[in-house]
Amino acid sequence: MTDRVREILSWYGSDNPGTLTNLARLLGHGALAGTGRLVILPVDQGFEHGPGRSFAMNPAAYDPRYHFELALEAGCSAYAAPLGFLEAGAREFAGRVPLILKLNNHDVLIEERDPAQAITGSVGDAVRLGCVAIGFTIYPGSEHRLTMYSQLRALAEDAKQRGLAVVVWSYPRGSGLSKEGETAIDVTAYAAHIAAQLGAHVVKVKLPSAHLEQAAAKKVYEKEGVPLGTLAERVRHVVQSAFDGRRIVIFSGGAADTDEAVFEQVRAIRDGGGFGSIIGRNSFQRKKPDALRFLRTVMDLYSGVKK
Amino acid sequence: MTDRVREILSWYGSDNPGTLTNLARLLGHGALAGTGRLVILPVDQGFEHGPGRSFAMNPAAYDPRYHFELALEAGCSAYAAPLGFLEAGAREFAGRVPLILKLNNHDVLIEERDPAQAITGSVGDAVRLGCVAIGFTIYPGSEHRLTMYSQLRALAEDAKQRGLAVVVWSYPRGSGLSKEGETAIDVTAYAAHIAAQLGAHVVKVKLPSAHLEQAAAKKVYEKEGVPLGTLAERVRHVVQSAFDGRRIVIFSGGAADTDEAVFEQVRAIRDGGGFGSIIGRNSFQRKKPDALRFLRTVMDLYSGVKK
Amino acid sequence: MTDRVREILSWYGSDNPGTLTNLARLLGHGALAGTGRLVILPVDQGFEHGPGRSFAMNPAAYDPRYHFELALEAGCSAYAAPLGFLEAGAREFAGRVPLILKLNNHDVLIEERDPAQAITGSVGDAVRLGCVAIGFTIYPGSEHRLTMYSQLRALAEDAKQRGLAVVVWSYPRGSGLSKEGETAIDVTAYAAHIAAQLGAHVVKVKLPSAHLEQAAAKKVYEKEGVPLGTLAERVRHVVQSAFDGRRIVIFSGGAADTDEAVFEQVRAIRDGGGFGSIIGRNSFQRKKPDALRFLRTVMDLYSGVKK
Amino acid sequence: MTDRVREILSWYGSDNPGTLTNLARLLGHGALAGTGRLVILPVDQGFEHGPGRSFAMNPAAYDPRYHFELALEAGCSAYAAPLGFLEAGAREFAGRVPLILKLNNHDVLIEERDPAQAITGSVGDAVRLGCVAIGFTIYPGSEHRLTMYSQLRALAEDAKQRGLAVVVWSYPRGSGLSKEGETAIDVTAYAAHIAAQLGAHVVKVKLPSAHLEQAAAKKVYEKEGVPLGTLAERVRHVVQSAFDGRRIVIFSGGAADTDEAVFEQVRAIRDGGGFGSIIGRNSFQRKKPDALRFLRTVMDLYSGVKK
Amino acid sequence: MTDRVREILSWYGSDNPGTLTNLARLLGHGALAGTGRLVILPVDQGFEHGPGRSFAMNPAAYDPRYHFELALEAGCSAYAAPLGFLEAGAREFAGRVPLILKLNNHDVLIEERDPAQAITGSVGDAVRLGCVAIGFTIYPGSEHRLTMYSQLRALAEDAKQRGLAVVVWSYPRGSGLSKEGETAIDVTAYAAHIAAQLGAHVVKVKLPSAHLEQAAAKKVYEKEGVPLGTLAERVRHVVQSAFDGRRIVIFSGGAADTDEAVFEQVRAIRDGGGFGSIIGRNSFQRKKPDALRFLRTVMDLYSGVKK
Repeated sequence: MTDRVREILSWYGSDNPGTLTNLARLLGHGALAGTGRLVILPVDQGFEHGPGRSFAMNPAAYDPRYHFELALEAGCSAYAAPLGFLEAGAREFAGRVPLILKLNNHDVLIEERDPAQAITGSVGDAVRLGCVAIGFTIYPGSEHRLTMYSQLRALAEDAKQRGLAVVVWSYPRGSGLSKEGETAIDVTAYAAHIAAQLGAHVVKVKLPSAHLEQAAAKKVYEKEGVPLGTLAERVRHVVQSAFDGRRIVIFSGGAADTDEAVFEQVRAIRDGGGFGSIIGRNSFQRKKPDALRFLRTVMDLYSGVKK
Repeated sequence: MTDRVREILSWYGSDNPGTLTNLARLLGHGALAGTGRLVILPVDQGFEHGPGRSFAMNPAAYDPRYHFELALEAGCSAYAAPLGFLEAGAREFAGRVPLILKLNNHDVLIEERDPAQAITGSVGDAVRLGCVAIGFTIYPGSEHRLTMYSQLRALAEDAKQRGLAVVVWSYPRGSGLSKEGETAIDVTAYAAHIAAQLGAHVVKVKLPSAHLEQAAAKKVYEKEGVPLGTLAERVRHVVQSAFDGRRIVIFSGGAADTDEAVFEQVRAIRDGGGFGSIIGRNSFQRKKPDALRFLRTVMDLYSGVKK
Repeated sequence: MTDRVREILSWYGSDNPGTLTNLARLLGHGALAGTGRLVILPVDQGFEHGPGRSFAMNPAAYDPRYHFELALEAGCSAYAAPLGFLEAGAREFAGRVPLILKLNNHDVLIEERDPAQAITGSVGDAVRLGCVAIGFTIYPGSEHRLTMYSQLRALAEDAKQRGLAVVVWSYPRGSGLSKEGETAIDVTAYAAHIAAQLGAHVVKVKLPSAHLEQAAAKKVYEKEGVPLGTLAERVRHVVQSAFDGRRIVIFSGGAADTDEAVFEQVRAIRDGGGFGSIIGRNSFQRKKPDALRFLRTVMDLYSGVKK
Repeated sequence: MTDRVREILSWYGSDNPGTLTNLARLLGHGALAGTGRLVILPVDQGFEHGPGRSFAMNPAAYDPRYHFELALEAGCSAYAAPLGFLEAGAREFAGRVPLILKLNNHDVLIEERDPAQAITGSVGDAVRLGCVAIGFTIYPGSEHRLTMYSQLRALAEDAKQRGLAVVVWSYPRGSGLSKEGETAIDVTAYAAHIAAQLGAHVVKVKLPSAHLEQAAAKKVYEKEGVPLGTLAERVRHVVQSAFDGRRIVIFSGGAADTDEAVFEQVRAIRDGGGFGSIIGRNSFQRKKPDALRFLRTVMDLYSGVKK
Repeated sequence: MTDRVREILSWYGSDNPGTLTNLARLLGHGALAGTGRLVILPVDQGFEHGPGRSFAMNPAAYDPRYHFELALEAGCSAYAAPLGFLEAGAREFAGRVPLILKLNNHDVLIEERDPAQAITGSVGDAVRLGCVAIGFTIYPGSEHRLTMYSQLRALAEDAKQRGLAVVVWSYPRGSGLSKEGETAIDVTAYAAHIAAQLGAHVVKVKLPSAHLEQAAAKKVYEKEGVPLGTLAERVRHVVQSAFDGRRIVIFSGGAADTDEAVFEQVRAIRDGGGFGSIIGRNSFQRKKPDALRFLRTVMDLYSGVKK
């Protein structure tokens, strides 16, 4: 175990050794093992957007085993998916890649201004499938957010007692926010803070824009001159907002048109003190060799092999 | 046990031997035993549409014992029904035909744009009645879908722990969809995928039309040139969408006017890699000899005795 | 025990001996003991309509002991009432008349288009009061029906495990139905079928009119020429709809103006294969001698003493 | 124990000896001990109307100990209050006055047409505080009434199992009723009957007016010539409606302007067969000596010392 | 232990020794130990308003350890925060400062006229983190208040059984109140009373204005001539409303422009018999030396070192 991992574990002083063990597994696996950085492969797009939209461009990805293999071959830190996808490979790949069971999901077969999610798995499922962590999505800004926070709380308490880590996808969305506001820097920082306050070990947010959504926040940011001009600065502020860097915060990409644009984002995350990326569509929606090359570059940027 | 059944069981690596045993019973019973194909007799129409509309054309079918006999004589893989119908024959027919207890139902005495179902049975009921599986309906597209997914999740976890299999009827319906969209190919594939992600061992959907309902999906299907022109191609895509064929997917017929039209559908299911049919109205709404002849033809098509 | 009772018990093959014992008690008590016919005294009108409207015409009926006595003296098969009324006499009359605890009730102090009921007793209450069965009302046609079905399911499972029988009042009502539709023959048959599917041992419906409410049902009834012209024919169809006569179905009267009109209804129930009557207002809203004469005539009609 | 108390206890044949013991304590305490009459001191006005409106006219009453003392010195049968008020004196006054823990409450900081109440205490709280009974309010006429009935049912079952008595405040209110209807004689009788059916040992209603609210009830009352002209007659009808006098029914005053008017009401309750009064504002909103004199007169009227 | 602390503990006669022990810890820690006065540091603003608005003016405060240190160095009686913030320092600071786990929270990413809060922690969390108390917010005046009261009741019962104290933030808010009414003296007194009735050991309200919101209350206050002219008088009335001073009531400041204005408020609290302050923004939104000076002055005012 590296000093950096030891340092990170020291931030979680209220967790039991079981949960620390699983956090250590997450930080000790794959190409970034021991660096304190993470690249996670998430594959819930089949549920969230439909199978055709998710896999038709790379039909091998319809097979649940494909994603275990991809995560393994690419040296990802972990693979996160809903119940069905994990059940379909957990025995075959047991012990070979850390797993995160996504415990809630939703689909887009009906549009709702204030979205919620269905509970689709249990902490008991995560335990029986050998997972290191549970995953859970909250929608700050939705009128259903309080229910989602309460659900997360109960599941997180259960998970921690059973020695699992807790990964929270914090996605601002709903009638409380403008479309632009969903990725505003103030809102993103707020979303990261809420997830941390709810007891998340790992927080996942979207890369923030420079937009400031809430008037009261804008006033303070401007008065205090918080540096938010570059993406790296914004990443730094989000990380700061999650307990001054004492919680693991990872990011998903915005609408990057080219690979190079994604790599630029990764550099910003790295330089802003972010802990890594969660990379879905840019991994399994390419042919595997291409995806492996792409992920390798991302990891090299995080590990410092590349600049 | 045939190699094909062994292969199918190998897809369910996260299930306990009890559940595999019950899946094996389902795949090992009746005229299609060992082929990996299934023809299931479902009789919940009395609850769903009313007894007169369901049984007046064949009054023998008012008697709950009739359906056990029909399933048995026709060599169906299993008989699925709500609590009352199974309670009324489970002792007399104990051990003679695999049973699936439908755990939720709804009626049409009130019309609702976004339908839901009542929980009408428990996993404990399924166990005490000697069933091999529970059955559950979800309505993707209804505003009640998240609740239904969450109910299914909890019941499926319970069923799996008690060694039962899980059969999910995934019927897109509700204000999120146009009438045509309920059987659109993109929506049907999505519905099958959701059921698989929720942990279903067997997924039941309607035969899909060539309509594409969701704009974002349509774009991808057209760009990637997914072959959807024939019914067999569409069946193949639905099966692919359920974990690339590693989940059992069965189909119910559309509005077929003639027996030959149904047989054509069965050929398409067979040739598209579907695992079988669930045949309600075309079985118990005919006189028994006619139904037996009809079902025999369907099974012969699946087993390859007929082309 | 008579052959007829033995035959009836044989229909309930999935129930435990405890429940069969209580069904046997119900079928073995009073003037109709052993005939397979039932006349039950229900007194929930105080709760459902108010005490004045229910008892002012026969003030002796304000006293809860009165109804135990009436049921006993008249030779009724059982006495059904809410918690309070049973608690007020269960010790004094312990073991002298079979009791049914009504587990839900509602009042008319507020009018609702889609009615529901409050849970007002528990299976545990039924056990401690020495009851043979629980009673439960569902309102098919109400937007609350799915909740009511789910409540019934849970209570019925509990009751059956504790050896009690389940009596379901199935009253179509709510925004899904026209006023005339509440007693339409198609709707009444549907209501009886739903109750049976939910696991009822005894189903209680209102006497059906010849009206056909649902267009889809009407089409089938007319095409198949189901005989519905006389009340006896309609009773026969309702009984048929409850598992082809393999569930006990009893009836309450419609708006009969004279005693003779009620007796005519009883003859129709008897001749149509109905299992008996539940007689509330025509029993406790008369002076006791008059009620006893009236009930004696009803029972004589059922037992065949009178034609 | 007097014959009258023995007689009253005999009405509760379904209760365990623990509950009878606590009922006997209630009937055996204070100035009316053994008479079968009760005067209860209720102090939930602080919660229901606010502390200033309740206690500013007699500031000593802000102190929770004051009400224990008042109940004790006045010889009240029991003292009823919410959790906080009882917690604040239960140790100091342990065993000196029977206590009733009010398990639900509401405030007037927001006006609602269909009121409900919050659950504010538990049966376990009542046990640990040494209470003889739980208290619970229902609002017949409110659209939340069914929920309230169901809550009461569950709490009452728990209380009875633990040997406590159940006191129900039955206050018609909500969109189902006109303002005048809230105290109409038909509605009040109905409210008392519902409480008794829900298993209450003691029912508390408001004194009824001669108004008849419900058309269907009015028709019957007028046809049967139920005597409702005097307050004593109306009290008699309410008591009759609660199981023909076999449940303890007590009353709170209407808007009496003078002490003498209250005493007249007490005479009517007494002469109509009511079991006593619950006197809040007329007791703790006066200086203590005045309150003691007032309560003594009320008790003398009930015990027959005064006419 | 001082006499004053002993006196305060004597008010809580229904609590077990475990809870009294934790109350004693709260009253026995920091600069005000033994005085019966409290100054609590609450840091839930990150959750309630967002991290930028809360901490950008003093970035050291992004670090959860900062607040433990601040509370410790300033000699605060306790530190109150949501789950995440306490988890992030509870081990490092174990046993050095009394902790209060805030069990519910809400954010401002969506505006609601009738606010509620999410449950964000459990009593079990409070126990495992070594807290002396749970904290809970209620919103009297919101249409969700009854649910909040019921949640508090259940959590408080659990907490008391496990030997924890209960601190309630009672913040009038919602469609039942005007903006001005949220801090009106009648409403504030009412809010304090409700919290005390719900079983709070410590009640936290905002400093009240002289406004009277509710007409019925205003009438009484004016008739009885309750002195409300000065802030000290209003504090006295609020304390009186919480069981005549037999519950600990603490205050948060209004919109004070200058330090001296805050000190004037503290003098009013002290002179009006209030038990102390909860000081958030005026503590952690300053540089630490400034905050320490400020808090020292506040404490000196409470302890009498300063006038």
